[in-house]
Amino acid sequence: MENILIVGVGKSTSYLIDYLSKESRQKGIRLTVGDIDAGNLEKLKASYPHIRGIRLDIFDRKQREEAVNASDLVISMLPARLHVEVARDCITFGKHLVTASYVSDEMQAMDGEVKKKGLVFMNEIGLDPGIDHMSAMHVIDRIRERGGKILLFESFCGGLVAPESDNNLWNYKFTWNPRNVVVAGQGGTAKFIQEGTYKYIPYHKLFRRTEFLDVEGYGKFEAYANRDSLKYREAYGLEDVLTLYRGTMRRVGFSRAWNMFVQLGMTDDSYVMEDSENMSYRDFVNAFLPYSPTDSVELKMRHYLKIDQDDIMWNKLEELGLFSRDKKVELSRATPAQVLQKILEERWSLEEDDKDMIVMYHKFGYELEGKKFQIDSSMVVTGEDRKFTAMSKTVGLPVAMAALQILEGWITTPGVQIPLKKEVYGPILKELEKQGVVFREKQGPYMGYNPHNVAG
Amino acid sequence: MENILIVGVGKSTSYLIDYLSKESRQKGIRLTVGDIDAGNLEKLKASYPHIRGIRLDIFDRKQREEAVNASDLVISMLPARLHVEVARDCITFGKHLVTASYVSDEMQAMDGEVKKKGLVFMNEIGLDPGIDHMSAMHVIDRIRERGGKILLFESFCGGLVAPESDNNLWNYKFTWNPRNVVVAGQGGTAKFIQEGTYKYIPYHKLFRRTEFLDVEGYGKFEAYANRDSLKYREAYGLEDVLTLYRGTMRRVGFSRAWNMFVQLGMTDDSYVMEDSENMSYRDFVNAFLPYSPTDSVELKMRHYLKIDQDDIMWNKLEELGLFSRDKKVELSRATPAQVLQKILEERWSLEEDDKDMIVMYHKFGYELEGKKFQIDSSMVVTGEDRKFTAMSKTVGLPVAMAALQILEGWITTPGVQIPLKKEVYGPILKELEKQGVVFREKQGPYMGYNPHNVAG
Repeated sequence: MENILIVGVGKSTSYLIDYLSKESRQKGIRLTVGDIDAGNLEKLKASYPHIRGIRLDIFDRKQREEAVNASDLVISMLPARLHVEVARDCITFGKHLVTASYVSDEMQAMDGEVKKKGLVFMNEIGLDPGIDHMSAMHVIDRIRERGGKILLFESFCGGLVAPESDNNLWNYKFTWNPRNVVVAGQGGTAKFIQEGTYKYIPYHKLFRRTEFLDVEGYGKFEAYANRDSLKYREAYGLEDVLTLYRGTMRRVGFSRAWNMFVQLGMTDDSYVMEDSENMSYRDFVNAFLPYSPTDSVELKMRHYLKIDQDDIMWNKLEELGLFSRDKKVELSRATPAQVLQKILEERWSLEEDDKDMIVMYHKFGYELEGKKFQIDSSMVVTGEDRKFTAMSKTVGLPVAMAALQILEGWITTPGVQIPLKKEVYGPILKELEKQGVVFREKQGPYMGYNPHNVAG
Repeated sequence: MENILIVGVGKSTSYLIDYLSKESRQKGIRLTVGDIDAGNLEKLKASYPHIRGIRLDIFDRKQREEAVNASDLVISMLPARLHVEVARDCITFGKHLVTASYVSDEMQAMDGEVKKKGLVFMNEIGLDPGIDHMSAMHVIDRIRERGGKILLFESFCGGLVAPESDNNLWNYKFTWNPRNVVVAGQGGTAKFIQEGTYKYIPYHKLFRRTEFLDVEGYGKFEAYANRDSLKYREAYGLEDVLTLYRGTMRRVGFSRAWNMFVQLGMTDDSYVMEDSENMSYRDFVNAFLPYSPTDSVELKMRHYLKIDQDDIMWNKLEELGLFSRDKKVELSRATPAQVLQKILEERWSLEEDDKDMIVMYHKFGYELEGKKFQIDSSMVVTGEDRKFTAMSKTVGLPVAMAALQILEGWITTPGVQIPLKKEVYGPILKELEKQGVVFREKQGPYMGYNPHNVAG
């Protein structure tokens, strides 16, 4: 009987566990979940009595080695920086490994050993990275097989709140790590190519240079550029592509409002504010505005941001309680980003019955037999509630599926890898469709960025 | 016969050498200049035949030790990071040291040994830091001696072009290291206190939050906040001060125009632009603007920066030749900041006969016997030409004077220090006055930031 070890279980693993639990029973595979938190294991036991739970401290070498050695494949759902030790054990004991994380340099360095042992170390097989790779390569390979040449690739993804639970002015709630949302776009200039020209957007302009997208049945969205649009250029074989752009999707109006925080300096995570613990929300706002003995924080803010009092931007700020004298920050030695996160979490956390929504959108422009075409491919997944989120579904299911495909011998090419090969994405995309993760394609004339390419 | 060793000679040392050369002859002190560049030494010999020049490679330990050992005091005009080795030799051989640089952690760590040997290691005794410390402490100590309590301290300094040589729309030329001007304000949020409230300005807003200053006889200036306004709070004994602000002075209108570069992302020094070598100036500009198949770079720029075609801001950009198709960057693997610096240096370098100008401005608010007062103290120094600049005068003279005061036994308190003590600033400020570096004071009612403090 084969054994899958899942290391690390939390709210993000609901679908992963649920799916694997059903599939493993059918396929006669044993499932072991290792976690440091006894509470997590108890909750798991209550819902899935046949899954074996073991207390596992990842920093306890003996425990870790025993658990890895007793398995045939390890799924690591730990924070990315903790994969390395598990990965080394996998090499030592000859076990496959699956993670949803980006390939770190340390992970990549193991490639030789992994290949030598004939193991599969599959990474970046969650949502983004993960489903984006697979769904993109699925279309790109098809175009190439027909002799087409890719001219344009744009890829967008967003974790949002579903329309039925969308009840704030920002049309946004946190569905993943709030911290990542608050500091999104920081740490480097966004870089991409449009029609053969390299473009650079500094952080303080990122949320004012959005692109718009329509998703049939779901309305209008906007996207701001990711930092790393060129990251997979070689991996996807798009060295000669004229346009390469990756972005993060939000509902229209979010970025313009978020830009207020950026302009004020509230998303900065690089310094600690004086006496942050005792600041009111109003003091927090005022720290970023010029001193005035006469003008209110409200007036200074409107003047600084150049917004009228009847601008919806203003209502968005008010909705967050930003001007409250009574609400205290109560975080000691906090950065502006940490304070902002706390304020936002009060308003943007999912309620028990709230549904989230994942949207992914690709554009492929290509030339075939002298003519130009475009394929738009999009996916929307809605969650069930705060536990069974679309985020957890789209991150967890591909991980689970990859694990099964490896154990069953469908994915065989050894090495440290990401899911770009047909051998990998083919069966997984098919299986994802069965679970409701479906891409819809629209074929049309090439739009690109040049009007002489535009139809009609 | 006592011997001063000056390590490192360049264009910034013209006044230092000239002054020391005259004084040392009178006082019977021998002057030795060590430099790695034989050309520099030859030029020196031509103007000052009695100064001894020696070839000195600072990384050659033997050469360095011999030179230091043969001296009684060392003046290091090397880049700040190179002081440490010289300082260690000074300790070994029991020699005093003078530099115009900020006290590094390594330098500070030597304090114990320096004191034990009874040596004076005087740092931050140029212009800024240097004259700012001395002129500020001069007034602060006077107020305190009379029983006053400091409420406000604001300090501004700028290296500018003199009115008679001011012939570009930016009212600015490079008078020191151009690189420092291009990246000024980066690497952290500006932080200061106004009327008891901490204020933070992110880099992308720094040049839009200026203060205005009038200097009698020289007109209006503006200042943007330094990053480190609170740096000397304890050293100056200003722990309880309500307002503490340090800023950099420019002619009015400079910051608003400079902000265009900031907004575009042209001052970024953190990444290399693709194919920078072959870009035209126009390509450089276009890399920061959205792609358009129809609109000109000019129109995109005006739209992005929201400026009308008859806005003087536009003329400032045109004056720099920014939209030229013919001028090439010709710098390989250059950051945006490096490209911008090159473009600016073409227009903003001092001509042979151009005069520069140093302006320093302090405001001291204080309470004395229940009443509030304010002293404004300002200094303006104009250079003679491109070699004998006001910058080189105000940086070099205090260094030279400190060296002589130490050798003559007027400055005796040992240790790694900066010129905050009366023993130091008293005689040096007096001697600076003789050389035309004069502060003018204006006493008046306390203005502060609160209108109920404002007179009539």
